[in-house]
Amino acid sequence: MAADPLTALPPDLREAVDRYLDERLEEKVRELVRRQFEDDPAANSCRIIASKGTLDWAYPPFILASTAAALGMDTAVFFTFYGLNLLKKDPKLVVDPIGNPAMPMPMPNIITVLPGMRDAATWMMGGMFKKHGVASVLELREMCVESGVRLIACQMTFDVMGFKQEEMMDGLEYAGAAAFMTEAARSHTTLFI
Amino acid sequence: MAADPLTALPPDLREAVDRYLDERLEEKVRELVRRQFEDDPAANSCRIIASKGTLDWAYPPFILASTAAALGMDTAVFFTFYGLNLLKKDPKLVVDPIGNPAMPMPMPNIITVLPGMRDAATWMMGGMFKKHGVASVLELREMCVESGVRLIACQMTFDVMGFKQEEMMDGLEYAGAAAFMTEAARSHTTLFI
Amino acid sequence: MAADPLTALPPDLREAVDRYLDERLEEKVRELVRRQFEDDPAANSCRIIASKGTLDWAYPPFILASTAAALGMDTAVFFTFYGLNLLKKDPKLVVDPIGNPAMPMPMPNIITVLPGMRDAATWMMGGMFKKHGVASVLELREMCVESGVRLIACQMTFDVMGFKQEEMMDGLEYAGAAAFMTEAARSHTTLFI
Repeated sequence: MAADPLTALPPDLREAVDRYLDERLEEKVRELVRRQFEDDPAANSCRIIASKGTLDWAYPPFILASTAAALGMDTAVFFTFYGLNLLKKDPKLVVDPIGNPAMPMPMPNIITVLPGMRDAATWMMGGMFKKHGVASVLELREMCVESGVRLIACQMTFDVMGFKQEEMMDGLEYAGAAAFMTEAARSHTTLFI
Repeated sequence: MAADPLTALPPDLREAVDRYLDERLEEKVRELVRRQFEDDPAANSCRIIASKGTLDWAYPPFILASTAAALGMDTAVFFTFYGLNLLKKDPKLVVDPIGNPAMPMPMPNIITVLPGMRDAATWMMGGMFKKHGVASVLELREMCVESGVRLIACQMTFDVMGFKQEEMMDGLEYAGAAAFMTEAARSHTTLFI
Repeated sequence: MAADPLTALPPDLREAVDRYLDERLEEKVRELVRRQFEDDPAANSCRIIASKGTLDWAYPPFILASTAAALGMDTAVFFTFYGLNLLKKDPKLVVDPIGNPAMPMPMPNIITVLPGMRDAATWMMGGMFKKHGVASVLELREMCVESGVRLIACQMTFDVMGFKQEEMMDGLEYAGAAAFMTEAARSHTTLFI
């Protein structure tokens, strides 16, 4: 054995190593993989697409993203289409009762089309959240920023829909769908809101 | 070698064992890990958020959740915002034709705002599903319960939107977004409906 | 050792080999598993559900699916409910300004219900995308087909909503929710649009 260490393991030792591998490897790998699954970086990564721009649909992305960040997850939200409204400095979000018969106080549409009903519904929804001590959309957005959630504006729809950079909040990233989807591919939690 | 068995392998033997491990290990581990990926617990877990409360948007969460459970997946649905309507004992779900030009029979909005059109659209949609032998929303919900899907009401929006526990179906869990997102992080299939 | 090569290694050598294997194996396997996680097939698979059938909600599934395919991901879109409209040969997609106060130019609903406003909004949205050099929905759909995205029609809602096979584009698959959810379970990126 010592005579030719560089060529090969002697057959008897080789057999012993083989037996060892057969016996022990499966158990060891299973344990290591189990641990690695627990540390799977995809389980620690959350990617959300926010595509809607009304008051009611502003809550879910900011609530879910700030929650994920509070849990220690690497979190980013990609704002596209109407969702870009949520990134304005002063977004003036409204909720429309029309065509939404699942609202807490549904009304016939012949009423909901009347001028003033949109303002009334917006005022009512804001009040409901406030009354129950829930942060406002702007406060939730600030909580996202403070807890390290990356807010990403979709460059393409930003241009198409005629947004101006000066009307947007500070600290945004601008990126395309390809960059975002590359990150989503490494995330278990992927939500289109 | 035999002189000091407890301290270390002699260098030449060590080198031979190393070379042998390099050869055999990669192939064996690759196969073991491949098998383990097939048992990836995240591939067996489905988490759905149901946020809408109309008849048309009631079908997708119950159909997808009961399907996932039938496939043997660990499945839970988190009902939040308007989606809480779907958990009422007697939900009276409607569909609104207004602002929905993709409905099977789209109508001009000047017609869809008229009183009675919401009832007509609701009646029509329910009939279409029944005619094709699809279970009703309440039947689909019951299938979810029977197949072990956990139905979770979002505690925060439950309070904000003024739901009462006595008007809700039995067997619900109540939880917050943090508990739900923790489970979603361990699931490949995560859908916001 | 050489005296009985087939039965076992001498105890002292065996112990040394064991200890050495324990030390080296963990590090080697950890590295191999880490590399295999980077090749996690779920990170290379994208499954999208397209459930809406208006012009504005036609862009996201086709843009995200063609982007995923361009990144080399195995990609499929399951069209269900109103989303089946997007698979018609000649889909005539429209966007409705009503109940959508987040549109680039929101209007009071008392105006948006007027005949002609739906056509105006549709014309405006198509123009905005065209002006910025974005492909049309039909071009994006063609890009999906050319880049290997599988387009799957939900058989159940196809039947329920009364679609006819002859009005649909060529090259579609028809499948149920169970087949689709089985594939989604093997995908990190799962989106309900």
